[in-house]
Amino acid sequence: MDIKPFALAIRLLLFNKNGEVLLLQRSKSSKTNPGRWELPGGKIDPGESFDTALNREIMEETGLVVRISHAAGTAEQIVPGWHVVHLMMTGSAISGKIRISDEHEEYRWVGIDEVKHLPLADWFADYYSNNRKIFVRPEQSEEMT
Amino acid sequence: MDIKPFALAIRLLLFNKNGEVLLLQRSKSSKTNPGRWELPGGKIDPGESFDTALNREIMEETGLVVRISHAAGTAEQIVPGWHVVHLMMTGSAISGKIRISDEHEEYRWVGIDEVKHLPLADWFADYYSNNRKIFVRPEQSEEMT
Repeated sequence: MDIKPFALAIRLLLFNKNGEVLLLQRSKSSKTNPGRWELPGGKIDPGESFDTALNREIMEETGLVVRISHAAGTAEQIVPGWHVVHLMMTGSAISGKIRISDEHEEYRWVGIDEVKHLPLADWFADYYSNNRKIFVRPEQSEEMT
Repeated sequence: MDIKPFALAIRLLLFNKNGEVLLLQRSKSSKTNPGRWELPGGKIDPGESFDTALNREIMEETGLVVRISHAAGTAEQIVPGWHVVHLMMTGSAISGKIRISDEHEEYRWVGIDEVKHLPLADWFADYYSNNRKIFVRPEQSEEMT
């Protein structure tokens, strides 16, 4: 029985005008998912609202000011000591120039169909496989209504 | 352009041994979704973790002590002044006897196929229609892997 304490992380599906999503490659020295690709975002600080936390993390990790738009599902991750729930939001950039932090090696705008070809962080791979319709342009999707 | 501030509510899909989910009927004097059926849960108090908030809300609204298990997606709701994101978790009851609060009229354990026949709160209706697989027993589902 899993009785690890929960933690909540907020993540952003940041799309550009070409419909590509911003992915970050985790540092090769990360304890979890080293060198794997993920969405920007992170944990909520004590007393911080979830959207404030997401805006702060996006600024720290990407240098961008963003507008958060919509909720886009969840994913889970088991790490030593924690059961992390990832809450995904969609959004777009308002201003800024991308500048990544020491937590990541590289950034890339990734086309919808390319995402699955990258080595993804475990929780993001699960999310991607369970929420394909979010990554499929409406005109391509048979699932979207 | 929607620029309402965000709020986060945590909701519980509480299943019993028959696979039925616990639904609560909102008070007929509620400002939003009066008389409609929803999942127990509510907003996070300042400084409260999301699982603590959910356990507290479940105790207040149902009298039950629960074990929270897994993340199960999101829904959205626009109300005057707020853009509410609902984060759904699954769970099961550990102890307690159901006793609802003044916020609700009634409770009901509802079979999977009956949910759609009740008048649902707007955000829960959206969630239900977009996440049918969560409400379908594995042996009935063609979508689950």
